[in-house]
Amino acid sequence: MNAIQEGSEQSSHRPATVARHHDLHDRLVAAAEAAMAAAGLAGLRARALADAAGCSVGAIYGVFPDLDALALAVNGRTLDAIDAAMGQVAPGGDPAERLVQLALSYLGYAASNRQRWGALFQHRMAEGPIPPSYAARQAAAFSHAEQPLAALMPDLPDEQRSLLARTLFSTVHGVVALGLDEKLAAMPVAVLRAQLRIIVEAIGRGLAR
Amino acid sequence: MNAIQEGSEQSSHRPATVARHHDLHDRLVAAAEAAMAAAGLAGLRARALADAAGCSVGAIYGVFPDLDALALAVNGRTLDAIDAAMGQVAPGGDPAERLVQLALSYLGYAASNRQRWGALFQHRMAEGPIPPSYAARQAAAFSHAEQPLAALMPDLPDEQRSLLARTLFSTVHGVVALGLDEKLAAMPVAVLRAQLRIIVEAIGRGLAR
Repeated sequence: MNAIQEGSEQSSHRPATVARHHDLHDRLVAAAEAAMAAAGLAGLRARALADAAGCSVGAIYGVFPDLDALALAVNGRTLDAIDAAMGQVAPGGDPAERLVQLALSYLGYAASNRQRWGALFQHRMAEGPIPPSYAARQAAAFSHAEQPLAALMPDLPDEQRSLLARTLFSTVHGVVALGLDEKLAAMPVAVLRAQLRIIVEAIGRGLAR
Repeated sequence: MNAIQEGSEQSSHRPATVARHHDLHDRLVAAAEAAMAAAGLAGLRARALADAAGCSVGAIYGVFPDLDALALAVNGRTLDAIDAAMGQVAPGGDPAERLVQLALSYLGYAASNRQRWGALFQHRMAEGPIPPSYAARQAAAFSHAEQPLAALMPDLPDEQRSLLARTLFSTVHGVVALGLDEKLAAMPVAVLRAQLRIIVEAIGRGLAR
């Protein structure tokens, strides 16, 4: 029903108007992505975004309800990039080693994209639930451990495996987040890599028993 | 040298002035603690703090250089409270079970004090290194796993054990932080407890091998 309504709404616009709207949407997301890569959420300023996208400040709000929605669009792309980075870990092989490689790929993305990655976990967002499409992208990024977990624990029911994959993501995230945070338990990236290997190998061994 | 300088500076004030200064310091920290317990860092507003502490807005800055310094004082007390909560876990016994109990005590503190706990990891703080006394309080809170780790891995050198204790804290923190965050991988506290037990028991078993 929603798709039909959206379709009929769009068909009431002239095609050129729709194309311009989509084009401005993409330019704003690109401008916001660059701003957040440089300075995280704090880098999002309407005036600078309008200048970068070649539109008026008011035109931003014709495309996005507020800057939080624009930040969420960029965060969705960041989740996709993390999903893609973790997706490059070769499937199969020793499942505990695969968990280690997934952890190292997450650390690699975070260390190379600190501001964008950090913005995923900063909440300047408006109250209310996150959109379902964003939740689905989160779930995709959080689910990479499921296949190696299935190999380590073949008897674990699907629902428990999915929950445990998410928890494993959280353990790795914790090590990466505190380890990269210079006000907390900062460690050089090489030390972090070694620590992640120790912890994730232990989890793999411990879960397999 | 600093202690002597501080002492001689204080002795140039009349005792009643020093006492008033200390009293206002304590009232401001208490007011800030209450404000942060209610609304995290966003709850810190000079006007409301001055009203609660019974002083002028200007008087705040006679005691603290800025509100960030006041937030840091409250965060130091929060670290002490976490240290105390984890310190209540009985020493000795099965070391893997002790790691589980430490993790559950951290979750317990965080779940019962979400705003204060969350403020530890929000950075509105001014740039620059954290004060040594604050770093020492962090280190104390992060070090509880050292004793059970020594029992699990008696041959691990002290420095490696200290690093691994900090990493273990980070893994538990990650599970708690994403698990309590309603915009991320939120889970009910009972589910979080069960997930922490699975992961930390696996780490204990895996490290002992």
